[in-house]
This record gives sequence, C-alpha cells and structure tokens, in this order.
Amino acid sequence: MMFTKNNQNAVSAIGEQALIQRINSWLQSVTLPPPQGIGDDCAVIHHKTAGSQIITTDSLTYGQHFDASVCAQDAGSKLIKRNLSDIAAMGGAPDHAVLALLCGPDLAIDWLEAFFCGIRACCETYAVKIVGGDVSGLAPGHFSAVLTLIGSVETTKLRTGAAIGDWIYVTGSLGGSILEKHIHFTPRLKEGQWLAKQPDCSALMDLTDGLAKDLEALLPHQSCARIDIQQIPIAEDALKRANSSGRMPMEHAFCDGEDYELLFTINASSSPADFARRWQHSFPHLRLSLIGQLAEASDKGATYIDQASNEALPWVHGFEHLKE
Amino acid sequence: MMFTKNNQNAVSAIGEQALIQRINSWLQSVTLPPPQGIGDDCAVIHHKTAGSQIITTDSLTYGQHFDASVCAQDAGSKLIKRNLSDIAAMGGAPDHAVLALLCGPDLAIDWLEAFFCGIRACCETYAVKIVGGDVSGLAPGHFSAVLTLIGSVETTKLRTGAAIGDWIYVTGSLGGSILEKHIHFTPRLKEGQWLAKQPDCSALMDLTDGLAKDLEALLPHQSCARIDIQQIPIAEDALKRANSSGRMPMEHAFCDGEDYELLFTINASSSPADFARRWQHSFPHLRLSLIGQLAEASDKGATYIDQASNEALPWVHGFEHLKE
Repeated sequence: MMFTKNNQNAVSAIGEQALIQRINSWLQSVTLPPPQGIGDDCAVIHHKTAGSQIITTDSLTYGQHFDASVCAQDAGSKLIKRNLSDIAAMGGAPDHAVLALLCGPDLAIDWLEAFFCGIRACCETYAVKIVGGDVSGLAPGHFSAVLTLIGSVETTKLRTGAAIGDWIYVTGSLGGSILEKHIHFTPRLKEGQWLAKQPDCSALMDLTDGLAKDLEALLPHQSCARIDIQQIPIAEDALKRANSSGRMPMEHAFCDGEDYELLFTINASSSPADFARRWQHSFPHLRLSLIGQLAEASDKGATYIDQASNEALPWVHGFEHLKE
Repeated sequence: MMFTKNNQNAVSAIGEQALIQRINSWLQSVTLPPPQGIGDDCAVIHHKTAGSQIITTDSLTYGQHFDASVCAQDAGSKLIKRNLSDIAAMGGAPDHAVLALLCGPDLAIDWLEAFFCGIRACCETYAVKIVGGDVSGLAPGHFSAVLTLIGSVETTKLRTGAAIGDWIYVTGSLGGSILEKHIHFTPRLKEGQWLAKQPDCSALMDLTDGLAKDLEALLPHQSCARIDIQQIPIAEDALKRANSSGRMPMEHAFCDGEDYELLFTINASSSPADFARRWQHSFPHLRLSLIGQLAEASDKGATYIDQASNEALPWVHGFEHLKE
C-alpha cells in the first residue's frame, strides 16, 4: 500500500530528520558525504573543466505519471529515467542530481523505501549521484517527486540545427507506451552520446509527448516534414491499444506520449545507406527508422505531409499535460 | 482567485506549449535564449572556472508554505528567496535556476502570471537566471513549485566546522514568522558572502526550522550549546504570537520555523567585541546577537544549557514538515 492508515508505518510517525537519515541509508552507494552530498544547506559540486554542463528537471506525480498498478521500485526508477532521457537528448552523460520529495503524512515508509530502492538501482546503473534534496508535506494521499539532474556534454546537439533536406530518424518503436513501456524503458544515453559525435547529426531530441507534437520542435522556419508512413515503427503495444481504443495504430504511434526514444536529423548531404551502416555497427540491437525528410513549407501550411500521397497528415497533437 | 471555475482563465484552456511560451514572456529579463535557457531538452550552463559550484532545491506548496491570504507575487518571490537563503547559508552567490511547476488544470492563468511576476522581480533583484523547467499536472485545486538553484562560492562555509568554545551568533530577530516574515524576508546573501571571507567564521547555516532544531546541526560531537537567554533576539511577532498561543515568547523564538536568518559560529580565540565592530562596520542596520558558546557535553546530555542557571533548556524541537 502506498498510503497507510497505520500510523506506525506513515512518514509522519518518524518526522523529517529521521526520514532524511533513512533516505540517506536507502541511497547508500549513490550518495556522497557532505559537503559534496546530502547534509548541508547546499551540495558542493566539483565539476569537470572540459565541456559544458547541462541541467534538466522533471517530476513524477502519483495519479499522473504512475498509478497503484506500478510498484514503488519502478516508480523510483521512472523518475530517474525520465531525466536521463533528457540528458540523452543532448548527447550528454549524467553526473549529479537533487531530489525534492513532496508527500502526504500518510505515505507508507515501506513504500518509500522501495521507491528509493528503485532510485538507487537506477542511479547505480547510470552512474548518477544524488547530492541533495528537500522533503516537504502535501495533503494526505498525495505524492510528487521532482528530480533535477546535472550532466556534462562534450559536443552539444540541440533541437535546433536541422535544415531543409535533412533526413529524419527515430529509434525503437512508437505508441502504446501506457501499456508497459512508460515504466520499462531504457534511456538512450549511449545512442545520444554517439549521435553527438557524428558531425552529420544536425538536431537531436527525445520523444516524450508523442512524435506528432515533438517533431514540430525540430522543424526549421517555414518547413514541413515529408513522412514515409510505411517506415513509422509502430510498436506492438500501439496495435494492442488500437484494438481497444477504436483508433488507428498509426495514430497511437504518432500521438501517444512517453516513447522515450530519440528523434534526430542527419544532414541532407549524408547517405542514408552509409548512416544505417554506421548505426548498425554501433547499435546492432536497436531499431533505427528513416521516417522522412525535412522540406520547404507546403502550400497548405501543413506540418506533416504524406510522401506517397502528398496529402497533409491528420496527426498534429501529442500528449497535453494540463488537460482535465 | 488562485483556482477558477471559469475555463477560459484556467491553464487547461491554453495547454502546455502555449503556457510555456507565456511563462517565457512573463519571465522576460530573467531568462536566457536556448540552449542556455528554456527551450531544449536541457539547458547548457557556462560555469565559472574559479571556485566551486553549489546546488540546492526547495519547494513551495499551496496549503503548506502559503495560503489564500498570500498574494501570488509574494508566493513567487518566496519560492526564490527560500532557495537564496540556502545559497546565503553557504556564503555563495546565486547563478542559474530551473523551475518545476505542478498544478491542477483549474489553476487561474492570471494568478500564475502574477506568481511569475513575483519570481521575475526577485530574480532581477538577486541576479538569478531561470534557465529551464518542467510543467506537469496535479489534481484540481493543487499547486506546487520546486526550484533548483545553482550558485557559486569562493570559500565554502559549512554547517560542520565549529569547535568547543566557539561563539554562537544569529542575525535579525526570531519567532512569530508565520505572521508576516515567512513571506517578507530578505535572504542574507551579502552577510553570508561576508562571513565566508572571515577566517574566524567556523560554521554557517540558515535558520529555517527554528533555532531549537537547526542549532543542533552546528554542534560538534559530544558538545552542547550554553545559551545566554537574555541575548536571544525575540521578534515582535513572537510576542504577538505568544499573546494568542498561550506559550512563552522565548518558546516562539526558539521553536518557530522560517526565520531565514543566519546562524553561525566564530572561533573561540576571536574577540566578540572585535567581531561586533567588524560586523557593525559592514552591516550597521542588521542586528547581530551573540547568543552563547559551544561547550563540552553536559552530564545530563542536554543539548542546550541556560548559562545563567546551568539548567537544561526545554526547547529542543523545531518545525516538523511531515506531521499531520
């Protein structure tokens, strides 16, 4: 149980200071002693002098990003991985993080321990250190956690940088993430770091709100994306979702959020066949799809055009966070 | 009104992307263009090479840290100042921040604009740049914001570092903050930076959970604090609170949270009279109180001892964040 009526197992029973001590012990290997870690007013970061620093922040809220069907460990690791996906989307490597925990007094301590167990395991896998944080109250039955992650990058790949003619790629497969993948995904860190080193990679981002919404961010001014519909990698779970939703699998692939795949462009002058070989050599087990090409804006002003039919594609909206 | 039944004035009416554009325009002068600012997967930080970097995170939740009696601008500036107080407590200067916004779909846009107006004004005053963030949903009627602030420091002053015999000081006056000061306080940045440069300052922190709880963090192993009760700077609002609470003003000065003053120690070998002169020269308008001295642990194991009577002081608990 995430929230408890048994006061002995509620975070309110032990209070903030003891809770912070427990969190410290739960995090074990992925913390640092103060002043580099938890325990002072701020954490002191010894940053690398080469390259640039990058920073991202992302939250995880009960009822929004996970529900009672998700175990605490998976919720904890999802919080870390959401942020790692943003680091991957810049071609960076993660370093340090701070964690703000907001919870009702009835949050169960054993649930929270399992949550931090998931955080610890994920931080060990990806070499992240949790160096500080904050604990704060919410109304009973509520839980949010916000992680701010700092990483480093040698060559930054931005969302902006693509030009008309550039080839558009996605990793993995898309859609239906809500069935499973929104919890069990792998942030594409190695792939992002590799792409950052490819001189012909012109723009890079991760897919979190759906291809239909996210691809727009890569489009240069007065351009559109000509999509090869046949090449959209539809996930099996998008097919499953379509069975129950009554919508097309392709719509799920375009519009569902939380794919956590990479979306990027390669210079028009590069050969897709050559790029496919380079990719295959480095990542033989991760599917790569050339889904289209950037083009001059169409007469009708459509954002996405079907290459085959020259018609506008109907999917232009992704996941909206603030809708009721 | 913070939350609205008028859908046109709710954040859900405009959606996340348009909301982020508005936030960008509200923040105006205190943002940077991407990739140094809002707009890509991460923000790129150009850090100074001298000194160390420090990081802190703090949250602000409706119903916990402010209520309907607090105007939106003041709530926004409180979020920034809470974090600035942590930077001050390390003797640092603020640089960059990222902001995670968690809100119900019924949050009123005009309230949020005023909230960001308070953030902007405060960031202008203290030279903070908001370089990124995240927007995420909560259940209707709920609002939290989490700020992670990165600063820099030449000489770090930690909580640990005090020794037995050191003099204990606080700035300003204590207690009754809930009446007014928890909103209208000044983070002690200049004072913290000045203290960081004083070779005889041995430990430094800010007071957020009450003197009774926070002072314990400065105590070296097997020590206690001998307190000169007459020198505790009781705030006028602690007297006001005592009138209605039935507790002693001194208890409010010791145990109330959110003073946002500095608590620090000066080497035993330094002359308090000389230190008072140095302080007065730099900060003639901010009260400084020498409230006691660190001493060997007492027989009874008490944390705080009244210098005059040699008796243990009864106030050992501060503000607890997770109690119902």
